[in-house]
Amino acid sequence: MRALESYLSGTWKSGTGTPATLVNPATEAPLATVAPATDLAAAVSFGRDRGGPALRALSFRQRGALLAAVAKLLHGHREALLDLSQHSGGNTRGDAKFDLDGGLGVLAAYAELAETLPADPWLLEGDAAAIVRTSKIRAQHLLVPRHGLAVHINAFNFPAWGMLGKAAVSLLAGMPVLSKPATSTSALAHRIIEIIAESKLLPDGALQLLMGPAGDLLDHLGPQDVIAFTGGADTAAKLRGHPGVLRNGVRLNVEADSLNAVVLGPDLAEGSQLWDLALRDAVIELTQKTGQKCTATRRILVPHERLADFRDALAERLGELASKTGDPLSKAVKMGPLSTAQQLTDARKGLASLQQHARIVRGDPERRDFVDVPAGKGFFLEPILLEANAGTLTDPAASFHQIEVFGPVATLLPYDGSITEAARAIALGGGSLVSTVYSDDREFSAKAVAEIGPSLGRLVLNDEKSAAGAFPPGCVFPQANHGGPGRAGGGAELGGRLGLELYMQRIAVQGGASQLARLLGGKPAA
Amino acid sequence: MRALESYLSGTWKSGTGTPATLVNPATEAPLATVAPATDLAAAVSFGRDRGGPALRALSFRQRGALLAAVAKLLHGHREALLDLSQHSGGNTRGDAKFDLDGGLGVLAAYAELAETLPADPWLLEGDAAAIVRTSKIRAQHLLVPRHGLAVHINAFNFPAWGMLGKAAVSLLAGMPVLSKPATSTSALAHRIIEIIAESKLLPDGALQLLMGPAGDLLDHLGPQDVIAFTGGADTAAKLRGHPGVLRNGVRLNVEADSLNAVVLGPDLAEGSQLWDLALRDAVIELTQKTGQKCTATRRILVPHERLADFRDALAERLGELASKTGDPLSKAVKMGPLSTAQQLTDARKGLASLQQHARIVRGDPERRDFVDVPAGKGFFLEPILLEANAGTLTDPAASFHQIEVFGPVATLLPYDGSITEAARAIALGGGSLVSTVYSDDREFSAKAVAEIGPSLGRLVLNDEKSAAGAFPPGCVFPQANHGGPGRAGGGAELGGRLGLELYMQRIAVQGGASQLARLLGGKPAA
Repeated sequence: MRALESYLSGTWKSGTGTPATLVNPATEAPLATVAPATDLAAAVSFGRDRGGPALRALSFRQRGALLAAVAKLLHGHREALLDLSQHSGGNTRGDAKFDLDGGLGVLAAYAELAETLPADPWLLEGDAAAIVRTSKIRAQHLLVPRHGLAVHINAFNFPAWGMLGKAAVSLLAGMPVLSKPATSTSALAHRIIEIIAESKLLPDGALQLLMGPAGDLLDHLGPQDVIAFTGGADTAAKLRGHPGVLRNGVRLNVEADSLNAVVLGPDLAEGSQLWDLALRDAVIELTQKTGQKCTATRRILVPHERLADFRDALAERLGELASKTGDPLSKAVKMGPLSTAQQLTDARKGLASLQQHARIVRGDPERRDFVDVPAGKGFFLEPILLEANAGTLTDPAASFHQIEVFGPVATLLPYDGSITEAARAIALGGGSLVSTVYSDDREFSAKAVAEIGPSLGRLVLNDEKSAAGAFPPGCVFPQANHGGPGRAGGGAELGGRLGLELYMQRIAVQGGASQLARLLGGKPAA
Repeated sequence: MRALESYLSGTWKSGTGTPATLVNPATEAPLATVAPATDLAAAVSFGRDRGGPALRALSFRQRGALLAAVAKLLHGHREALLDLSQHSGGNTRGDAKFDLDGGLGVLAAYAELAETLPADPWLLEGDAAAIVRTSKIRAQHLLVPRHGLAVHINAFNFPAWGMLGKAAVSLLAGMPVLSKPATSTSALAHRIIEIIAESKLLPDGALQLLMGPAGDLLDHLGPQDVIAFTGGADTAAKLRGHPGVLRNGVRLNVEADSLNAVVLGPDLAEGSQLWDLALRDAVIELTQKTGQKCTATRRILVPHERLADFRDALAERLGELASKTGDPLSKAVKMGPLSTAQQLTDARKGLASLQQHARIVRGDPERRDFVDVPAGKGFFLEPILLEANAGTLTDPAASFHQIEVFGPVATLLPYDGSITEAARAIALGGGSLVSTVYSDDREFSAKAVAEIGPSLGRLVLNDEKSAAGAFPPGCVFPQANHGGPGRAGGGAELGGRLGLELYMQRIAVQGGASQLARLLGGKPAA
């Protein structure tokens, strides 16, 4: 069985110590091993001292051209990468595309953004401001690339999108990357880095790969470094409290748990195109990637009088998916397994918690037979829909406001149709990545921005007119902010140019008006 | 002796338990007592549930008008407040004005900014972006006020500026404030809140005052709340690691230690106006507020060949100040005491550390007699200038890169006149609030932006032309970013409109192009 190596300090390095075994989550067949890497201090220095200056010697446009070249390169390997994604990650073909094409999309979007950026080594923010009315001294805000290493700690669910998306933003900003994929699904991330490394497209030290555990990596980070973490709240808390991170003032961006909600407006009528969109989106968000998306819908607010209709229609569609859950390599299968045995254990445990305040209206958490899967094998969970018990909607302790079951699971929450009650319930989730409103009531939607907005990083507004062209809310686009307050980690990634801020330092440059104009210019890109 | 009460939940509340005694730091005469407050959970709710909705019911402009009214109100009490500042804070008249007028200036600047803000309850950021080329779906970024409480934990050195500056930004953004001044100098903050509370200008719950220790305040904060902290790195680490802050995802902004540096360019000639400016600034930054400013200069980089001239000129001027150090109520005095006995102890300890890698070239840390002060009384330290030992400039362990002595103390660092060496030395400080360059060499200044910039929150560029109108680098202007990476806390405050971001939530609103234009009022994207 192949031992997957780390790509550190410009070379492939074998790990040492006890290896972990990667398995196909549909069949539990072993695929490869990964052993802990050493010499992480050297890798941090290599990125910081070799990759950093090499990237900063290029303009934004030149770095953007590298992103475009990497996207093109990987596109040439797309079919093989999709195959690997299916074999190693429990992904249907559609799930595999969602992950890989998502990653290629971020590379392309940031390559495109680069063409709009200036030739200067910094990005101006707004105009120079007078600091005292009668004075010629001005303050001009700008962003410069940080002189450190960007450490990307990614989640198991998106080995391609997570890694490439974070890398695209960081590299365009001018920061070298050390990427640490989640071990369980790291075979795909490993192959992607192998392809990029072989191509020699990127400068030495611009993109390193750490397979396996993080070891003592964090001990070597300093005030110019950035950690961008995606994963669970417990790990996030450990990162935040890490003595070196605290002592050295490492910048840390967290994207953690999220109890994303959707709200069916009081005006939503059965049979409308918007009703169908709400249903379609709910099915996709429960079952795409087997519900293992940080942006997947977990809470569905439905006006009391629409509850029965929506519940029955959704349960029926989820039933169809349940009958097509199994080995994603099978043609008949529409939904694959969870990624690991631990995920399945955690999901079942979470479902038990949810049932303290809700009842299952469709699905069997204990089902053991799935399409084209040897009996008892694989980490499968069929789609489960719950409905909140009466009187629990605005109970802060209700488990559906507290527990994220990271699988094909969501809870219907009947509500009174008012934005006040919807906002109150959504806020009890403690901060989410995304919420979605289905309504043609403009006042309802406008109030949603002000009342639900503070709990979110993104708000999707769907009305009848835009329903035909709308995207499912769990789609993360490089042009839109990705992150959320509180439980969601308090971070911000992507969002076009805004996303570059994570890897840059904002400074106010203060000086004479003409001096600043001359030095900082805002010269047009060559 | 008066017991100073907290202003919480709409009323003045006596503390309970052992009180602390506030003293005049020049004479050690007791002034007032402060005892710990209780019922902080109720105060948090009062701010969040009463102050928040009341503020959000107003437009940005209306909130700006409140700031202007508060500034006008306090201006009417200016002389009495300056007197109190002198008696309670060890401030010269100039220091007292710097603090109070600074605070009034932030109120005025944010009141002025408010007049440029829209009538909507949110702030648009940029234009709506297409998320897929062929689609009409757009993403529009905007900022909405957070639905929580802003807890402001301020430092002892600026009881007026720190409190009013943070409050101005928060209130304009739409977030209610609970302000906790540092106990030792809280008499001034207390009087200011007394004046504001009596006036009834602000809605109930918009501005509360917690005197004394923070108690269990942090336990009651949640994902919509914000902590803005200014103070030492040790306290900052405690806040960051606080279980409730971690668990509940409270947003935390830190402004902590800072080893601010200035750089005399290789071209700086003795006798030029720029040379004189560098000297004037150095004297001000060492001695204003007795060097107790987070933005005060701690490291002065001077080209080897200019060292003797600059050192001698600076030492001479500091000598004059040393002879005028004493009770700030005395007409002859130009520099007052440190704020507390602990500060004096810490400063002397820090000076011992600095002397591991530098030697004192002027000043006596043990001096005990000061102008118009009873022998042995008061927390005085005269201006101390050090010079780094040969070969220490780029030693990461050098104490002048590690230890901030919070008093009238700075170290001269001879360097080779290259921006590379200057940037390397400055970066060893691990992140600072501000650096300053004195040079007419445009290439040197431009390189400073890219090379020193990443270590900073603000960079002051002075050239001969702007020298006549330049401000000392330690002046913090509401229009310019205040904060810095790493050791400086990684925070960002002020900076005009950018400063509002701390108290608002950024969301991407995603929807049909015409729908967004109608709801949000932004220009439709092409």
